[in-house]
Amino acid sequence: MTEPSYSEFFQLIEGVFEGVPFVREIGLKLHEVDFEQQTLSAKFVRKPQLIGNHFHNILHGGVIATALDQVGGFTAMVAAYQRMGGAIDWEEKIQRLTRLGTVDMRVDYLKPGRGESFVCGGSVLRVGNKLVVTRMELHNDADELIATGTATYLY
Amino acid sequence: MTEPSYSEFFQLIEGVFEGVPFVREIGLKLHEVDFEQQTLSAKFVRKPQLIGNHFHNILHGGVIATALDQVGGFTAMVAAYQRMGGAIDWEEKIQRLTRLGTVDMRVDYLKPGRGESFVCGGSVLRVGNKLVVTRMELHNDADELIATGTATYLY
Amino acid sequence: MTEPSYSEFFQLIEGVFEGVPFVREIGLKLHEVDFEQQTLSAKFVRKPQLIGNHFHNILHGGVIATALDQVGGFTAMVAAYQRMGGAIDWEEKIQRLTRLGTVDMRVDYLKPGRGESFVCGGSVLRVGNKLVVTRMELHNDADELIATGTATYLY
Amino acid sequence: MTEPSYSEFFQLIEGVFEGVPFVREIGLKLHEVDFEQQTLSAKFVRKPQLIGNHFHNILHGGVIATALDQVGGFTAMVAAYQRMGGAIDWEEKIQRLTRLGTVDMRVDYLKPGRGESFVCGGSVLRVGNKLVVTRMELHNDADELIATGTATYLY
Repeated sequence: MTEPSYSEFFQLIEGVFEGVPFVREIGLKLHEVDFEQQTLSAKFVRKPQLIGNHFHNILHGGVIATALDQVGGFTAMVAAYQRMGGAIDWEEKIQRLTRLGTVDMRVDYLKPGRGESFVCGGSVLRVGNKLVVTRMELHNDADELIATGTATYLY
Repeated sequence: MTEPSYSEFFQLIEGVFEGVPFVREIGLKLHEVDFEQQTLSAKFVRKPQLIGNHFHNILHGGVIATALDQVGGFTAMVAAYQRMGGAIDWEEKIQRLTRLGTVDMRVDYLKPGRGESFVCGGSVLRVGNKLVVTRMELHNDADELIATGTATYLY
Repeated sequence: MTEPSYSEFFQLIEGVFEGVPFVREIGLKLHEVDFEQQTLSAKFVRKPQLIGNHFHNILHGGVIATALDQVGGFTAMVAAYQRMGGAIDWEEKIQRLTRLGTVDMRVDYLKPGRGESFVCGGSVLRVGNKLVVTRMELHNDADELIATGTATYLY
Repeated sequence: MTEPSYSEFFQLIEGVFEGVPFVREIGLKLHEVDFEQQTLSAKFVRKPQLIGNHFHNILHGGVIATALDQVGGFTAMVAAYQRMGGAIDWEEKIQRLTRLGTVDMRVDYLKPGRGESFVCGGSVLRVGNKLVVTRMELHNDADELIATGTATYLY
C-alpha cells in the first residue's frame, strides 16, 4: 500500500473524526487542517441537549472539554504522523495513531459558554517520539474566548 | 420560605442534577450524597453513542470529563451550601449556588474507559467563601480506576 | 495618600518583586511591565545551585515552576489593580493585592532547561473581580520555549 | 555488576535525591520509601530564604512546587524501576531512570504555607512502560494539608 497524498490524508482524518460516536452526539465537524503549521479546527452549533446550566442557558463544561480533547487529539495525530516520517511504514504509522490516547488535560473556563456556534482550534506545543502536547482554544460566534486547554497525548 | 431538611435538599439536588440537559444525554444519575463527609457520587452505563475510540470500544475522554465536572460541581455545591451556614438566607444561598461555575479542571486518564457501567465520586479538598476545590475519581464495574480529576469552582 | 503614577507603580512592583526572599535565591529580576497589554516579564541566569539533573546539567523543574508562578502572580496583580479601578481607594487596593495568592497552576515542561539565561513572560487570559487566570512562558537564551504554564490567582 | 538489594537501592536513591543542587538549596531530605506500596516522602524545615509572601510570612509557591515535583519524580523512579523488572539489565535500567523527566504537573495551593516544618509524600496513580503518573501531598507540622499535586513523568 502506498502512502496517501495530503488531500487523501485530510479525508481520512475527516472520516475518522466525524465517525466517532460521541463526536456525532455533539455535532462537532472538522473544519480546517493545516499540515504545515500543524493546526486543526472544528465547529459545532448550540443544541438544546448541550446545555449545562438551566438558569443561564450555557454549554455544559463537558461539551467544551469534549471539543478541546477531540481537537487536541487530532492535532496530536497530525503532528505524530509527520514526526514518524519516512522511517516507519504506512501501516505501522496508522497502527500507532489508532492507539493515540489522552494522558491528561487541563481546561480553563474563561467565560460562560454562550453563543449560537463555536469553533475550537488546536496547535502543537511539543512533539516527541512518544508524546505530543497541544494547546486548544474555544471561541464563540462573537469571537469571545470561552475556554482554553492544554493536553498531553501518548502514541 | 423556610430552609429545607437535608432529605428535601437531597431531592432538590437530584432534580437539578438529572435535569441538566447534557447530563441526560450521558445518562448520568445521582447515586449518593453524604452531607457530613461532603462526598457525592453518580453512575452511568455504557451506551454506543458514548464511545470515543472506534478501534478499541472505549469511552470518549469527553464523556469522562463530563462526569468528573458534573460530580465535582455538585460536590462543590454541597460544600458551599454548608459553608454559607446560617448567616445568609435560603434564597440568597440558592442564588449563589445557581451561579457556581467551573474555573478550571485537570483530568488524568489512567486506563482505557472499558466497562458496562461506571461510578464517579467526588470529595472536597478546600472550601472557602468564594472557591471550592474538589477531587474526583471514575471507576468501572470491575472497580478499576479509569480516571481522576481535580477542579476549582467559584460561587 | 494619593494614587501613584504608573512609573511609581512600576517601581513599587519591582521593589516588592525583587524583595521576595525566595526570588532573591533564584536571582529572578523584573524585566518589563506593559500596563496596557497587561504583560510582564522577568529574567534570571543559570547558577550551579539551580540545577536539578546531575546527569544532564539542566534546571530543576522547581526553579521553572517558581519563575512561572512569580511572573504569573505579578501579572495577575497588574490586571487586578487595573480591574479594581477608581471605585476602590488606593489603600484598600494594596491590601487586596498583598493577599493575592495562587489557587492552582499547571506547568508543561516542553524541553530540558538548558541555557545560560532565561526569560519568563506572563499575560492575562481572564480577569474578574475575584480571580485572574494567566498564561506564562519560559524561553532560554537560544529563544527555545522551555516551559509553559497556566495559573489561577485569587485576590 | 549484580543488581543491588533494596537497602542498597534506598541508599542510592537517598544519595541521588539529596545530591541534587536545588534540593540542597531548599534543604529537602529523603524521609521514607516504601517499595511495596510505591510511596515516598521527604521533609524540610522553614528557612527565611524560602518565604514568598512578605506580608504573611508563608512559603513561596515555588518552594512547594519544588518539593512536590522532586517527591513525585522519585516516587515515579521507584515505580518505573519495579515496572522494568528482570527483563532489562541493571545498567540499562539506571540509564533510563537518569533520563526520567517531568512532562507536566498541576499544583493546588489549598492553605497558606505556614509552619516550622513540612512533609511531602508521593504515591503512584499509573505506571506504564513509558509514563508514570503520581499524586503528591504537602502537610505542615500541624498536619494541615497545604497543597496537593498531580504530575506525569516520562522515562
